[in-house]
Amino acid sequence: MFDFKYFAPTKVLFGKNTEDKVAELIKEFGGSKVLIHYGGGSVIRSGLMDKVKAQLEAAGIKYVMLGGAVPNPHLQLVYEGIELCKKENVDFLLAVGGGSAIDSAKAIGYGLANGGDVWDFYDGKRKAEGSMPLGVILTLAATGSEMSDSSVITKEEGLIKRGYSSDFGRAKFAIMNPELTMTLPDYQTACGCTDIMMHTMERYFTNGGNMEITDSMAEALLRTVKKNSIILRDDPKNYDARAEVMWAGSLSHNGLTGCGNDGGDWMTHKLEHELGGLFDVAHGAGLAAIWGSWARYVYKDCLPRFKRYALNVMEVENKGTDEEIALAGIEAMEDFYRSINMPTNLRELGITATDEDLVTMARKCAVGVGGGKGSAKFLKEEDMLAIYRAAM
Amino acid sequence: MFDFKYFAPTKVLFGKNTEDKVAELIKEFGGSKVLIHYGGGSVIRSGLMDKVKAQLEAAGIKYVMLGGAVPNPHLQLVYEGIELCKKENVDFLLAVGGGSAIDSAKAIGYGLANGGDVWDFYDGKRKAEGSMPLGVILTLAATGSEMSDSSVITKEEGLIKRGYSSDFGRAKFAIMNPELTMTLPDYQTACGCTDIMMHTMERYFTNGGNMEITDSMAEALLRTVKKNSIILRDDPKNYDARAEVMWAGSLSHNGLTGCGNDGGDWMTHKLEHELGGLFDVAHGAGLAAIWGSWARYVYKDCLPRFKRYALNVMEVENKGTDEEIALAGIEAMEDFYRSINMPTNLRELGITATDEDLVTMARKCAVGVGGGKGSAKFLKEEDMLAIYRAAM
Repeated sequence: MFDFKYFAPTKVLFGKNTEDKVAELIKEFGGSKVLIHYGGGSVIRSGLMDKVKAQLEAAGIKYVMLGGAVPNPHLQLVYEGIELCKKENVDFLLAVGGGSAIDSAKAIGYGLANGGDVWDFYDGKRKAEGSMPLGVILTLAATGSEMSDSSVITKEEGLIKRGYSSDFGRAKFAIMNPELTMTLPDYQTACGCTDIMMHTMERYFTNGGNMEITDSMAEALLRTVKKNSIILRDDPKNYDARAEVMWAGSLSHNGLTGCGNDGGDWMTHKLEHELGGLFDVAHGAGLAAIWGSWARYVYKDCLPRFKRYALNVMEVENKGTDEEIALAGIEAMEDFYRSINMPTNLRELGITATDEDLVTMARKCAVGVGGGKGSAKFLKEEDMLAIYRAAM
Repeated sequence: MFDFKYFAPTKVLFGKNTEDKVAELIKEFGGSKVLIHYGGGSVIRSGLMDKVKAQLEAAGIKYVMLGGAVPNPHLQLVYEGIELCKKENVDFLLAVGGGSAIDSAKAIGYGLANGGDVWDFYDGKRKAEGSMPLGVILTLAATGSEMSDSSVITKEEGLIKRGYSSDFGRAKFAIMNPELTMTLPDYQTACGCTDIMMHTMERYFTNGGNMEITDSMAEALLRTVKKNSIILRDDPKNYDARAEVMWAGSLSHNGLTGCGNDGGDWMTHKLEHELGGLFDVAHGAGLAAIWGSWARYVYKDCLPRFKRYALNVMEVENKGTDEEIALAGIEAMEDFYRSINMPTNLRELGITATDEDLVTMARKCAVGVGGGKGSAKFLKEEDMLAIYRAAM
């Protein structure tokens, strides 16, 4: 068991119409002039934005708007946001949307509080010493950014996608109304469920540390998301299932499911990142397309965890050798992905990569992780290439 | 499923020698003159206090000391603490100990930040509008006060024991080193494990709300504490088991295991409070002595939960009617209490109450909860009396 820090200070208001509390929460955390940061038009078309604006106006809170945050949010918009906030003397950031709007707002906050080029933080050149207070109205359950310390930004020049994690970036509050996620396309819902499970799975498949309370709560979370993903496939407006998945999304990435372990494996995420760099891929679907090949490549080096996963998450029969049970668990997970219309290889993901592409991705991935990475199994460039090839 | 708020902002440093970070954390949260509040001499005899003082001195942080916090901490000491802090211009409170020192420090914080008589908050006359920042070095896993919003203070005059809950009372940081709990007497360890489980069980046995993710994580927590309580009975210096129990103690009372339900039942706690008022009873042991009688009295009105508990926490065989399974679960829980030398009735608790005592306790309990209370089953005075009588 490893020592750990746990810090998840975000105040969560969860349930129907919780967005009606947004002005009250902004005032509680000292905001008087707000940047409302969002992505596309869905939050406007749904009427949510009008509701938010009316709340702020009634409370005498001034605001400016900045839309346009896209999946893999762009650095250029972050710069724009910083300039706008300076010009308008903004003292509070409100992200309305999913991970894209939240991550983009986190970057704007770092830029405002620290000065200099905000890309420095993502480029590993500096550490943030503060941020501007941030609140969230969540409309998509997936990235867990509403309670996490992390954000990912893409620099357009060279399409460099980099993450930065800091406790200063954690949101002051998160408003989570499961009803706001009900109009998502089925594919995005399934991608979100996959991403949520993967945040816990990356922490779970390790060879270091491990507390029983963390592991068994992680398994409980994973079983819950698995079950409710299938409910949502058949009944997308099911409030309870939306709520289970939404709350799981926050708990899966706020640190809880990693307490006491060695920090996790994270190689599925790293392999997917390169995929997302070269092809137009939804993050959750990319993770599903890679995971099975990764799992079959590494499971013998992390057998006790894969066996536990098979029995306690996938609920396969406790019969046969440990290897047979572990493999049955991996197969059951791939069956689950297929059942919610997620891909289990690159072909099903709809991309046609040449072997040269795979070689390029493996090289970039290895460089990106400083040569090698992984706790279930430590992977080098040749391992990464083998996994990409197996995922074809 | 009910709407909920979740707010657990306490920064946790968990692991060996984490107490070495105390000065750094106090500075991070703005402290320059500290009240070190503690209970008896064990934290001095163990050398912990010398370590803490040396840290503060090296960091140039001034401090004053106030010991004497007892189980069911007294109002008089809270008043003393408030006066001392005013005189010494204290700006940060550090509780070193278990729930007694922490609860007493929370009350001192309310008194300092709000003025007037601090008993008003416990007496329900006012609400706190702030508190003085509080840090904790935990030496006893039980009450969960290190991450909870609650505190319980006893007014000596009339022995009135009252709780007050406010987010302002939540600790800024909690230092948790499982090694600091290794020298506890076995009885106190078992009492702590019982208290920890009960904080989740009070939230679990309800007829309202219930999210699958909350329930299944609660079950995971309860199984973990049960298993590790037995390990600690046989091997009190087992670091991993101490760590599992310690972290479970915080998660069991920080709100996590109640998200989405109706607020919980809490009648076992209320029934035990009256017991503790009339007799000299360790809180955890009192809970164990009452629980079985409460459970047998209410289980038919909350059968699905008692069945789930039997199967998923006590892991009894899935055989027979729902009632038979539920009863087997209650019996297994009582067997578990006995296995860690906890009582399962008032006789085993070592108190000899007359029927008149039981009548008095039932009356006081009913008055204390405004006539009646309970979610598993709503209990009135006659129900409370029946449970006390069954617990004889």
